[in-house]
Parts: sequence; C-alpha cells; structure tokens
Amino acid sequence: MTAAARRLVLTQRPKPGLVPHDSFRIEDGPVPEPGPGEFRVRIEVISLDPAMRGWINDGRSYVAPVPVGGTMRAYAAGHVEQSNNAGYKAGDAVQGLFGAQTHAISSGERVVKINTTLAPLERWVGGLGMPGWTAYFGLLEVGLPKAGETVVVSAAAGAVGSIVGQIAKIKGCRAVGIAGGPEKCRYVVETLGFDACVDYKTGNLAADLKAACPNGIDVNFENVGGDILDTILLQMNTFGRIAVCGLISGYTATTMPEGPRNLRAVLTQRLRMQGLIVFDWEKRIPEAIAQLGAWHKEGHLTIREDVRTGGLDKFVDTLNLLYTSGNNGKLVLKV
Amino acid sequence: MTAAARRLVLTQRPKPGLVPHDSFRIEDGPVPEPGPGEFRVRIEVISLDPAMRGWINDGRSYVAPVPVGGTMRAYAAGHVEQSNNAGYKAGDAVQGLFGAQTHAISSGERVVKINTTLAPLERWVGGLGMPGWTAYFGLLEVGLPKAGETVVVSAAAGAVGSIVGQIAKIKGCRAVGIAGGPEKCRYVVETLGFDACVDYKTGNLAADLKAACPNGIDVNFENVGGDILDTILLQMNTFGRIAVCGLISGYTATTMPEGPRNLRAVLTQRLRMQGLIVFDWEKRIPEAIAQLGAWHKEGHLTIREDVRTGGLDKFVDTLNLLYTSGNNGKLVLKV
Repeated sequence: MTAAARRLVLTQRPKPGLVPHDSFRIEDGPVPEPGPGEFRVRIEVISLDPAMRGWINDGRSYVAPVPVGGTMRAYAAGHVEQSNNAGYKAGDAVQGLFGAQTHAISSGERVVKINTTLAPLERWVGGLGMPGWTAYFGLLEVGLPKAGETVVVSAAAGAVGSIVGQIAKIKGCRAVGIAGGPEKCRYVVETLGFDACVDYKTGNLAADLKAACPNGIDVNFENVGGDILDTILLQMNTFGRIAVCGLISGYTATTMPEGPRNLRAVLTQRLRMQGLIVFDWEKRIPEAIAQLGAWHKEGHLTIREDVRTGGLDKFVDTLNLLYTSGNNGKLVLKV
Repeated sequence: MTAAARRLVLTQRPKPGLVPHDSFRIEDGPVPEPGPGEFRVRIEVISLDPAMRGWINDGRSYVAPVPVGGTMRAYAAGHVEQSNNAGYKAGDAVQGLFGAQTHAISSGERVVKINTTLAPLERWVGGLGMPGWTAYFGLLEVGLPKAGETVVVSAAAGAVGSIVGQIAKIKGCRAVGIAGGPEKCRYVVETLGFDACVDYKTGNLAADLKAACPNGIDVNFENVGGDILDTILLQMNTFGRIAVCGLISGYTATTMPEGPRNLRAVLTQRLRMQGLIVFDWEKRIPEAIAQLGAWHKEGHLTIREDVRTGGLDKFVDTLNLLYTSGNNGKLVLKV
C-alpha cells in the first residue's frame, strides 16, 4: 500500500461556512505513469490558501471551480521521480499547481524549478511562491506605493500580507499591519519590521488605525474586507489606492455579507480600488522569484511557514484554520 | 426693492433625508459693489446638482461644506453688469461657482466666458458646463472606453448620464442607459441615441440589463450606487472599469445605506473602481468645452434642460426633485 497514490477528491460543493469534512474523500489508486513529454512529481508539501474556499464554490470567478469528482486544486512542491521531459530530470525540486495528492503528472506547464539551497521546499509555496508573487505584483503594480507614503496591510501576519509590508518597507514606505491578537501584532512589528500593527480584535480599530497612520493611508493592500475595509475607507487619503487581493472575512459567511458602507469615500477621495489575481502577471513570475529570492538572501525578507503534518487526512481541518485565524505564517501541509 | 440683491443662506445643517425648507433662508441686501479687479454678475440661471446634498453636510468630502450662515454654493450663469477687471466687460455672458443668489462678485477665478450664439445660457451650466465636463473627463479618463465595448450609464436621462452615453456612442461603443420609467427610457434611446435603456423601476433590472448587454459590461459610469451598482457588478467583464461619479441613491437616505454586497466581483474580475470629481481636471476644462461645443454644433450631442421658475424661493423644492427622480434633463432654476 505504501506505493499507492492518494488524492483528495471533491465529493460535493459545500454550503456556505467552514468547509465540512464530507466535501472531500480520499481516493487511493496506482501511482500514475508519465506519458510522452511528461514527468511525475512526488509531492511533499501542499499549500493551503484562502482562495481555496472560492475554488470549490460554484459561480463566476477568475478560474473554473474544481469539478465535483475532480482532484482538489492546490499549489504544491516536491521532487521529480520519473521524467519523459528533457527539461526535468529525476531529483529536480519543482513547484506548481499539482493538486492535493501524493503524486502528480505534469507537462511542465506553469511549473517552477526550485533552488532548495536558497530556501526549503515549503518556502517555495509560500513567500517565494504564489503568495510572494501576489504580494510583489499586487503591491507594486496595483498599489503603486511611493517612498514616504503609508501602506496599510490587513491579514499582515499571513502569507501574502507579511511580504507586502516588508516590500513596502524596502520601498521606503511606512508599513502598518492589521492582525488579530497581540501575539501576531508583535510578530508583525518585531520580526517582520513593520512600523506598527493594529489588533482588530480590541474593538478599537478606527482609533488605533488613526494613531498608527498619522498622515492617513495612501495604499491599502486588502486581504480581509468587511468591517476592516470599511474602517480603512474613512482614513484613505485623496487619490489613494486599494489593491483588493482577498476578502476573506466573507469567504465562510453563511449569509451574504454586507458591502462596505463607506464606499462614498471612493468618490469623495477619488480612490482607485482594483482587484488583482496573480495569474495576470504569469509571464513576469521569473522576475518576482528573482527579486524576492534576492531580498530573502540579503536578509530583507523574513518568511515564516506554519507547517502542519497529517497528510491529506488533515487537509480540511488545516484549511479551515485560515478562516478562523488559526495559523501563524504561511500554512503548509506535509504529505 | 427691485434693485436689492437676494441670496440663499444655509441656516442649519439638515438631518439625513430630503432637504427641509428650514435649512435655508433668503436674505435681502444691497446690490454688492465690485472692488479692484472684480466684477459683478447678474445671475439669471442657477444649476441644481445632486452633489449639493453633500455640500451642506458636515463631514469629510472633496470640498469644505457650505458654512452655516454662508451663501449656498452653486454653479450659475448670467451677464456681467459692472466690471473693474480688464478681462471682463459689462454685457459679457459668464458661468462660474457664483452661488445661489441674484448678484455675485467675482475676480474671474474659475469663471468661463459663454458663447450664447452656440447655446443658451442654461446649457452652459448643463451639458456644456460642469455636468458636461464631468461626463467628458469621467468617461474618457477614468472609464477608458474602447470602440466596440459596452458602456452602462445609470441616471442616463440626467445631466451627466445623458452626455456620457452620447460620448460613448461617438467613441464607437455600445451605450446602455439605466433610468426610471418608460418615458425617460424612451427619451434616452429615441432622442439621445443610446442603443438601449433599462427601466430600473420594473423590478427586473438584472435580467433586463443582461438582455441589453449580451457581451457583458466593460465600462460602468455610475451615478446612482446602491442596488443598481450591485446588479451591475455581477455583469462586469474581466478588467472592466467603474467610474464612480455619484451615489445619489444614498444621498437622502435616513439610515446609513448598505454597501455593494457584490464587491467580490472587483476581486474575481479584476475590476478597477475609481472615484472622480471634475475639479481634478480643472486645467483641462477649455479642452472639454471646445470638444463638447464642437460635438454639439455638429449635431452629435443632444442636450436638454428642465428649466424651472420661481427664483430662490423655489430652490429647495426644485433641488429635491433630483432625489425623487422628478426632473427631466438638466435641472436649472431661473432667478
């Protein structure tokens, strides 16, 4: 049985809320054989990302939903075991949208080769992987921060937010995080080097944010939405930019969440609010990897993973940590 | 008494809702004398604009609120009566932020000279005035329409919306209006030349809009907000632009209106939502006047005013028509 392959299959679309266990089943099967031009990856770590809740919903989004009966979509990393592709050889460390499974067959499309001497495997699905690329393009291309400006990042201790604030610092901005609880806030300031971090759980967000942003907010990199976005809107400076990367506060809502009541600020302050998906910069991903890798090597970029064990059996429980603020750093599951 | 000047003074900030009569009083006084470098305008028409509801509120906006005890801010047009300014002579027709009064003193700042052979005075506070400039810069600089795209305009029979759709047509787009009632919708299509107009009062907005926009919506020029914006959001195409010019649905709300529940579309479709205020293009207003005037002269731009009489005594009743959908075309008050 140890040679068998396992994959996580979507059994039914979950109702709104946290992901229930019966949305997935594990299927055992033979280890797949790569066809011509293909290679097989033995997956070692799977990335858990907030967007996953959307991927298993029906409805219009930026990618088609995972089909019922299909393998759960996931970024993952591992080593090539067997290859019929001249570009990849057994032993190569790789990262890609390999899915939540133990073995993946790939033609090399959208696959990134990993330098494990620079950082361990799990970091390549985190700060040096998709979350890092999202932070890089989202902040620099949509947020357009200028030196001296104030950048506010929600979910600042998370996989994307932690990188956003550090890039903001590299670019000469004041970086202010929003996170849940004193421990995360301390981490954001003391370890990641943000100028300040506001604990949204104190019930005092508006006043605390104002104190942390005495010159107002020029750029908001938004991962959360809901009340947090509403509070930020009222403190945005004229011509400010809101890069909408995620709206996690609504992902597991069981009733349709309210929209931002302070949308009027978009008008009165002439804000630009723009959504972003990292795939839109797909051709420039090597640039992001090179720059993030260089900053990391030079010590400008602190990256932390929260690596969980238990394999595919623990996928649902681990994923739900994201929606209950239960993780500390980029959430990764060992397979 | 006929030689006396009259002005409309803000007596107190109104509570949320329609504007009550006791928010203003009329003050009589002597006709003011222009000082050095100044001139006096005899005001003939006053522009009623949706933004006025915001100008008399306290709170953060793009201009300071009208002070209690101050003359109500208003665009107006008339003729110069007496001048100590070499740039203006008695008899010149002019337009500017002269206020809701019979006589204004001006130094010429932000004043536009009017060509009354091209269009009557009231049109210069309408389609060739601030609403026209707003449509021109808002659509072209924020909406960025490309030929062949679909542009949806709410309040399409209104002062700004009516111009937006016609410019969209000039630029080779499909122009779809949203307006209240069959009469306005007929006007938008038959007189203004939009490709279609959807009546939001039928309760069938989503389906009707979908039928009118078979290829989805690329640009939304938004004057209304609320449920209309929410419906539009779900039909926006990827990389669509939403130019937020007004949110009139909320201006007279007595409770804080809900925000757009479908904001998630900004993320999934990578929309750009951006607020606009015409003052931001102040230096380019001559360009807008020249272009709008040329289109008007060539017959590409149909402009209609709804001219009301009764002078300053009727200011409040006339203004409230805007928030109850009671006007037909650019609302103007004769003084």
